[in-house]
Amino acid sequence: MVKQERAVRTREALIRSAAEVFHQEGFTAASLTVISSRAGVSNGALHFHFASKAVLADAVEDAAAGVLQTIMDRRSSAASCILQHIVDATHELACGLRNDAVLRAGFELSGEAGRVPRTDLRLRWKSWVTDMVERAGHSGELRETVALEGVASAVVAATVGFEVLGNRDAAWLSRRTVSQFWLLLLPALTSVSFAGDLEAGGSSPR
Amino acid sequence: MVKQERAVRTREALIRSAAEVFHQEGFTAASLTVISSRAGVSNGALHFHFASKAVLADAVEDAAAGVLQTIMDRRSSAASCILQHIVDATHELACGLRNDAVLRAGFELSGEAGRVPRTDLRLRWKSWVTDMVERAGHSGELRETVALEGVASAVVAATVGFEVLGNRDAAWLSRRTVSQFWLLLLPALTSVSFAGDLEAGGSSPR
Repeated sequence: MVKQERAVRTREALIRSAAEVFHQEGFTAASLTVISSRAGVSNGALHFHFASKAVLADAVEDAAAGVLQTIMDRRSSAASCILQHIVDATHELACGLRNDAVLRAGFELSGEAGRVPRTDLRLRWKSWVTDMVERAGHSGELRETVALEGVASAVVAATVGFEVLGNRDAAWLSRRTVSQFWLLLLPALTSVSFAGDLEAGGSSPR
Repeated sequence: MVKQERAVRTREALIRSAAEVFHQEGFTAASLTVISSRAGVSNGALHFHFASKAVLADAVEDAAAGVLQTIMDRRSSAASCILQHIVDATHELACGLRNDAVLRAGFELSGEAGRVPRTDLRLRWKSWVTDMVERAGHSGELRETVALEGVASAVVAATVGFEVLGNRDAAWLSRRTVSQFWLLLLPALTSVSFAGDLEAGGSSPR
């Protein structure tokens, strides 16, 4: 039991270490020796858990997909409607990308040239946003004149832009930047009276 | 003279070939042998022009920066105002990223982990958009209530998102996707009467 626990912890430490090294060096340049030594384990221990760098990258992606799923599933009790849930999720995502090396590396791995992603996190995020925008549209939360496809692609493109630009400058992932985006977009999406009830900065303090 | 012309052509062929290989394999994994053979020249010829892969990447970035500058400088006579010039430039950029391997690779190199960009194209684009949005604001083209900083960051984030997502799916760089973004945003930026004169699809056919 204790041995199992230690194995789980070693595996997690390796995933975190790999995420940090992938982010700094890129997947192709990342060295397994650097990853294992940063995790405080031997090269042998790394190979016991992960047969190759590709398998390790898949594990980082899986762990990041779990974090993303939690963000998408969590609906604040303060979120008055579906649109607010979408706004809240973009804030949670930006916050996660700022603070969680695994989530950040998972998104970066989605765009890595020459590697086929196992779980393309950007695509998964796109599917969720598209689904939620459609639901908001069918619930009458959006103006009838807006194209649902256009709303989904604007939200996905802007958040992926924040993610990518945030790799070099964390200000792109700040609450301020994400709020400004919604302050601009919300009045275009909903009627004026409805927009007044929405919180561009997210419905719960973070 | 003929010899000089040939040298210029070889250099250009190498830059184009490098751009294609960087896009497919990523900068780190890209092989100089593959790049030279795709350009139809010897490894020796490549090294005569470029001392290292890093120098070659700088040359790709420089060439891409030239293409981006042309896009930013070109103002259609049909563009009635600064905001239309910005809309047109986003369409030109998307079109360029779809069709020009050098421009695409230049943008990708800006985000390459473990490499300091010589000319960060995303930052250059951001500077231009920020400057133009400020000018549009000072010319009274925008609603007084919109935050100029928010407009610039929404446009930059969305276009960088289109660029990154377009690497795996060209539909993100289609005229339709870019037009939908503007159809959504323009009414939020300008008064209703003014927005009617703007072409979300760009002011000139392409």
